Amino acid sequence: MTSSNGAPSAQIDVGLLSPVRAGSAAEQATGDGAYLRAVLEAEAALARACARAGLIPHSAARAVTDAAAGAFDAADLARRARESGNPVIPLVADLTAAVARLDGEAASCVHLGATSQDILDTATMLICRRVLELIRAELDHSINTLTRLADTHRATIMAARTLTQQAVPTSFGLKAAGWRSQLVAARARVMQLAARLPVQLGGAAGTMAAFVAWSPRQQDEGALLLQAAFAAETGLVEPILPWHTLRAPIADLAAVLAFTAGALGKIAADVLVLSRSEIAELTEGAPGGSSAMPHKRNPVRAVLIAAAARRLPALAAQLFGSLVAEDERAAGVWHGEWEPLREALRLTAGAAEHCAAMLETLHVDPERMRTNLRPEVTAEHVAIGLAARLGRSRAAAIAARHHTSDELRALPELAGVPASVLERLTDPDTYVGAAEALIDRALREGG
Amino acid sequence: MTSSNGAPSAQIDVGLLSPVRAGSAAEQATGDGAYLRAVLEAEAALARACARAGLIPHSAARAVTDAAAGAFDAADLARRARESGNPVIPLVADLTAAVARLDGEAASCVHLGATSQDILDTATMLICRRVLELIRAELDHSINTLTRLADTHRATIMAARTLTQQAVPTSFGLKAAGWRSQLVAARARVMQLAARLPVQLGGAAGTMAAFVAWSPRQQDEGALLLQAAFAAETGLVEPILPWHTLRAPIADLAAVLAFTAGALGKIAADVLVLSRSEIAELTEGAPGGSSAMPHKRNPVRAVLIAAAARRLPALAAQLFGSLVAEDERAAGVWHGEWEPLREALRLTAGAAEHCAAMLETLHVDPERMRTNLRPEVTAEHVAIGLAARLGRSRAAAIAARHHTSDELRALPELAGVPASVLERLTDPDTYVGAAEALIDRALREGG
Amino acid sequence: MTSSNGAPSAQIDVGLLSPVRAGSAAEQATGDGAYLRAVLEAEAALARACARAGLIPHSAARAVTDAAAGAFDAADLARRARESGNPVIPLVADLTAAVARLDGEAASCVHLGATSQDILDTATMLICRRVLELIRAELDHSINTLTRLADTHRATIMAARTLTQQAVPTSFGLKAAGWRSQLVAARARVMQLAARLPVQLGGAAGTMAAFVAWSPRQQDEGALLLQAAFAAETGLVEPILPWHTLRAPIADLAAVLAFTAGALGKIAADVLVLSRSEIAELTEGAPGGSSAMPHKRNPVRAVLIAAAARRLPALAAQLFGSLVAEDERAAGVWHGEWEPLREALRLTAGAAEHCAAMLETLHVDPERMRTNLRPEVTAEHVAIGLAARLGRSRAAAIAARHHTSDELRALPELAGVPASVLERLTDPDTYVGAAEALIDRALREGG
Amino acid sequence: MTSSNGAPSAQIDVGLLSPVRAGSAAEQATGDGAYLRAVLEAEAALARACARAGLIPHSAARAVTDAAAGAFDAADLARRARESGNPVIPLVADLTAAVARLDGEAASCVHLGATSQDILDTATMLICRRVLELIRAELDHSINTLTRLADTHRATIMAARTLTQQAVPTSFGLKAAGWRSQLVAARARVMQLAARLPVQLGGAAGTMAAFVAWSPRQQDEGALLLQAAFAAETGLVEPILPWHTLRAPIADLAAVLAFTAGALGKIAADVLVLSRSEIAELTEGAPGGSSAMPHKRNPVRAVLIAAAARRLPALAAQLFGSLVAEDERAAGVWHGEWEPLREALRLTAGAAEHCAAMLETLHVDPERMRTNLRPEVTAEHVAIGLAARLGRSRAAAIAARHHTSDELRALPELAGVPASVLERLTDPDTYVGAAEALIDRALREGG
Repeated sequence: MTSSNGAPSAQIDVGLLSPVRAGSAAEQATGDGAYLRAVLEAEAALARACARAGLIPHSAARAVTDAAAGAFDAADLARRARESGNPVIPLVADLTAAVARLDGEAASCVHLGATSQDILDTATMLICRRVLELIRAELDHSINTLTRLADTHRATIMAARTLTQQAVPTSFGLKAAGWRSQLVAARARVMQLAARLPVQLGGAAGTMAAFVAWSPRQQDEGALLLQAAFAAETGLVEPILPWHTLRAPIADLAAVLAFTAGALGKIAADVLVLSRSEIAELTEGAPGGSSAMPHKRNPVRAVLIAAAARRLPALAAQLFGSLVAEDERAAGVWHGEWEPLREALRLTAGAAEHCAAMLETLHVDPERMRTNLRPEVTAEHVAIGLAARLGRSRAAAIAARHHTSDELRALPELAGVPASVLERLTDPDTYVGAAEALIDRALREGG
Repeated sequence: MTSSNGAPSAQIDVGLLSPVRAGSAAEQATGDGAYLRAVLEAEAALARACARAGLIPHSAARAVTDAAAGAFDAADLARRARESGNPVIPLVADLTAAVARLDGEAASCVHLGATSQDILDTATMLICRRVLELIRAELDHSINTLTRLADTHRATIMAARTLTQQAVPTSFGLKAAGWRSQLVAARARVMQLAARLPVQLGGAAGTMAAFVAWSPRQQDEGALLLQAAFAAETGLVEPILPWHTLRAPIADLAAVLAFTAGALGKIAADVLVLSRSEIAELTEGAPGGSSAMPHKRNPVRAVLIAAAARRLPALAAQLFGSLVAEDERAAGVWHGEWEPLREALRLTAGAAEHCAAMLETLHVDPERMRTNLRPEVTAEHVAIGLAARLGRSRAAAIAARHHTSDELRALPELAGVPASVLERLTDPDTYVGAAEALIDRALREGG
Repeated sequence: MTSSNGAPSAQIDVGLLSPVRAGSAAEQATGDGAYLRAVLEAEAALARACARAGLIPHSAARAVTDAAAGAFDAADLARRARESGNPVIPLVADLTAAVARLDGEAASCVHLGATSQDILDTATMLICRRVLELIRAELDHSINTLTRLADTHRATIMAARTLTQQAVPTSFGLKAAGWRSQLVAARARVMQLAARLPVQLGGAAGTMAAFVAWSPRQQDEGALLLQAAFAAETGLVEPILPWHTLRAPIADLAAVLAFTAGALGKIAADVLVLSRSEIAELTEGAPGGSSAMPHKRNPVRAVLIAAAARRLPALAAQLFGSLVAEDERAAGVWHGEWEPLREALRLTAGAAEHCAAMLETLHVDPERMRTNLRPEVTAEHVAIGLAARLGRSRAAAIAARHHTSDELRALPELAGVPASVLERLTDPDTYVGAAEALIDRALREGG
Repeated sequence: MTSSNGAPSAQIDVGLLSPVRAGSAAEQATGDGAYLRAVLEAEAALARACARAGLIPHSAARAVTDAAAGAFDAADLARRARESGNPVIPLVADLTAAVARLDGEAASCVHLGATSQDILDTATMLICRRVLELIRAELDHSINTLTRLADTHRATIMAARTLTQQAVPTSFGLKAAGWRSQLVAARARVMQLAARLPVQLGGAAGTMAAFVAWSPRQQDEGALLLQAAFAAETGLVEPILPWHTLRAPIADLAAVLAFTAGALGKIAADVLVLSRSEIAELTEGAPGGSSAMPHKRNPVRAVLIAAAARRLPALAAQLFGSLVAEDERAAGVWHGEWEPLREALRLTAGAAEHCAAMLETLHVDPERMRTNLRPEVTAEHVAIGLAARLGRSRAAAIAARHHTSDELRALPELAGVPASVLERLTDPDTYVGAAEALIDRALREGG
């Protein structure tokens, strides 16, 4: 895999173009090596399930399991996959040879009755289960941090911004509670989905005919028992039907990963705005440098999360497209699904990891939030406060132009209004509405 | 809206480019006229909620409700929407004028404390609820038909096809059960989502500050009570937080609509293959004609469903993109979400309607299914059946080339195999595996 | 089309959800009424071409042309389009009836030898030509304004921002020149494409067999002459081959429209950033108001352009997907292409119109640009200027922390550096690089 | 990079999930190793350009060039890229250290005045140029094969199919000419684009300020000369302006790659249809096997091409999205562009390679094409041929139901029609229209 001078071979990928997941646990869990191991696990689990269902001897299942723990050449399999369209077919050949070296009899027990999609789909679900667990853990981490931030900053006043303009006051605590609520929703979806990832075992075309034919009494129950045993061996769920071209599980993964990446991307989008030099209300704990400008402190984690979040919708679209899979096994739809799913897993998990780290060390500057507040953020309050006296329309016209209590006091038509009222109406602290009640309600969720 | 000669004005859309939804109930429920009515409903509901919460007199709420039932000029509102970026702002002006004509005092009670997004998001959820209900009803219809087809054709043998090639035998009943399982899954998601569509009521920037300010005792509870009353008036759900830039509801709609359209598209894809002149196992009950060829009988409903299903992934991607919405209200993300969501609703509901009609009158040709079966569909069975005698590898080699019992009988190495065994191995009816058991299991679901 | 109370029927669209194109010339050019007219134009042009090629009498062509100028019911055609999958088939029936009323003999000359896709594709190209011309005119307008802005503000110093942080100085003129360069590139692509939009005339399956059969001597040339005559009648280009499932023209439209919308979106993205309350270097000439906050001045045109630009990539993806169209006419791919193409045209043209208006009245605030400049924007200059004396690494370390000449002068290791040098290194006006030369180079392009 | 047992580390990718490009030249040209080399080439070219422009000594440029030829650890760089968001920053550190080991003075001449995006964008263009050349060569190969197929099969009659139904006769030669025309169009776009890929050299924010500051006389021309020298050293084109956030080159790549993949995907779609067991008019020269069914001969190259073509639209959409890049360097847009562009290059080039191989060995079965022809394919001809006698409507009604000359002869109303006329009207060979003339016209293009 490496050339003589220690550099990687030109064609190998190590994450150089994807810093959001480089070196992450998700990357470890989704590399070609990890897929190869998962495929081997699926073959071994199938052999053990066959033994439990009486299709092959237990000794053969042990031989397959042992052989599957050995080394196989992923790059060579990748090249040979071109001949049949997927990597399971050459792997079955190599695994059979490896089993034969351990136990000649057992060789004929490899991949019994299965189609290559049974194995690759099951392996993919094993990978998904691990990555969803990684994502869940990182979401937990972020949610905990946001619980703290929302609570600590429940009265930290800052400008709410709408259509790029300062609008009314809000609190940073409410913003953090909003971020948190999306992560709580994402986590619930992740966990619900992780608990129902199905095994795939339909045989050549989803009838399980070969399993029936290989099973001791050649009856339907043999095949269904085998499917249950396979589910038990892998820890995955038994589906109602084989799903070679009934791709609900893939569509559900698309939805959950796109949701999660979007929830993370919302946080990054806000951090990017609030990190702008002219706003500077938030700063990343470990900002990034520049190759040109010595002073730069870039919100680099937010950038990487934002970049990942930008990619998920198109990847999810690709995966939703898999639902329209013709026949009993499709000619291209399935094959075009593998890489986008892996990429969606990696990017989302990588973004989740960066988000947890970013939030944990995020520097919040309440002083700056207050000094950034512009006087006009109380215009709505002034308009409401004067409406009873002046009518809504006239009050709004005044509020549109006069933002301080001094300016208001100078207006003849407000001569009779007590100064304390004008002070209150132009004090942003009096106009954060139900922010605290909303924070409380949000924090009661998903703690 | 119409020119002097009775033709529509050039710029108006009536569904000419979208036969999948033309004339459908979903089209009625999603046209600009329907959106306008929903926006007016939301304003009226807000007024009534304000009255219940004590912010305005009940008489004013009645005046708003009455005025909202009147006529407004959608095309004029569309043009005026350019000035502020959304159609609610000019509508509020027109509605206020209409209320003033009924009750001068009540005019100041229109749109109290709300932002335009509160109203448009709520109106959109009202539209979504109706369309999801239409979709559910059509899915019910299709599921019922498929229950019948799966049961009737549980032993109708046909070729399972994989990567375009005849693979092994299956039954049309199992295919129908597979189609049905995806629709059952879609229906569950549709119903679950329809039951949690939220009202939107955050005020200018999600703090509900104006509602607090307008409420009798100017306390948080006033705003929360108002939100609950608004939910009660609209029949929608109260959210944990205002969701102006926390777009989980939109992402969930994207996921459910893309799932449903994909489930329908799978059926259409199979109908298209099985309708091919050279296969002709299925025929639509009312195929379409051609403007050129008198003999043509095109599977036109399947074509329209397929065309709709092709569009949903990209529309869903657009909507998932809405999750990354900066600030308290976003500058473009929200505005770019309205039309794709409407289009996703229309196309999915239109496809659901066509699918129900297509399935109800679908002509299934069991004879043709049987005569289309090619001898090689039993090759796997032959390979398994001879494996014990010849070894898996040799048995497979024979099965790859010899597909009839006559051919097999002529092989010297099979001299000792009883003719009845070879007959059985080459009889497709003996090789449909667990198809019936799978059909039974599938039909127990979601009946 | 309208209900008794003057409101539009519920199902009709008038642009309520698309302010970016509401009331625009592009909307007029792309509504269902406009498509209906274009289809009728195509039928009339075909009849005249048939007459020129000797397939029908000139009197019949006149009758078809006259009848095609009459009124047809688009909504009724839309509903009847469901039966055959496209609106041309019912229209041919109605047009034939209308011709028969004028000239009984001529009725058999309508749609002679054509397939419905010949007509709808040709009509679509007629629509595209008009909209591309509208887009070109709006791009011209914007380019002219940007030429002025780039020239006027060639020395208007402002902060260049990278990864959200102030980086180094630049000029607003260079920014305007950059915007302009993308519009110049877009305009070139638009014009090049508009000049090669092809007519479609392949007959039932692209062999032109019916045209040969109807032509006087029943030879190939008859069909090719007819195609040339059809191109001449429509003003479109004669293609090498019929392109029913060779969708290069559609893919090229996708590319050009996505490019153009993206070029406009870049401008909007920058306007949105620079309009932020805390930056305020740009202000739209006619900002939008809020339904809640009297003070708001939202950059509403930029919002609408941004929203449109967000949608084009997904629409273009849909259209690129049309390239993979099976057979001689595809079952769904074509049908799924009509609406996304129309939407791409409308949104791009609408955005082009808003951009031209936005730029023309854009308020540029050079004072604010200068006061926003933060001292650290000269850090790179300081690092370079001191590198010869201190080494690159040490110079960068100093520049990272000390940004004013006073601070630098106070450093012992810089004791020997003349004050004038430190003044120059910390003066942003001395560090705009080749900005003016670049502006000059850019303005020489596409004037 | 490898674990002790010879297996790849879990996280490394070797193409296991992408058989379409596994082992291809494009993979070699686009792996992380290749990107690393391209980045190093760009740094070396910059150093030489700096020497030519007088900014650094020629000896330093030689030292940088020599050091850049050494080995660097891509996986380590990938991990360190997280800190700053891109891999160039850590690489500059490592390269500087390597240069220092060769020539202490030269170390300060590395990456002079450049921003990391200058280097990565330029490296990407170098990669693109190589891959576009690979694609061009494969398209040439396919075009040559298709020229032969179109010519050889100009009179090979087969069914044209529309909306899945046999329509009228066509020739396989015309189909091949159609495929070829799209590849000719793709090749033209590839070559045009390859010739205008630009170098990137803007410095920190596109003003080239650092280059001016480092240049001998500190004048604009110094920077422009340097840019020209950089273009000369890399063989890329000098752009009008730095394009850090003016992403026309990326959008153009998106368009050309999506076009090319779609053109290849059209061929694959047709091969898949025509390979169906029930049609079997085409067979791949080296079909793929199955892990379950010994008889299977899957059209595996078409499957892999189809899978790749399915992915390009979404990847292109991602890249078109890059046009909307805010500021002088964007916070996420750029970072989200690297992997989709690489993937688009790999998939398109891999598909081009498979297509060339598939076409070269494609088995065409003219006998099967003829026997598959159904009698109704002449219905249109019959309808036209009888129209003069019976009127268009009655002729069409007859043609819709009677497809053979015997059936027609038996109709009383056709008693007077000579048998030879009915024979001719029902002979598919007489009804291929202008197919040959169209083939000739198409083959004159792009030979």
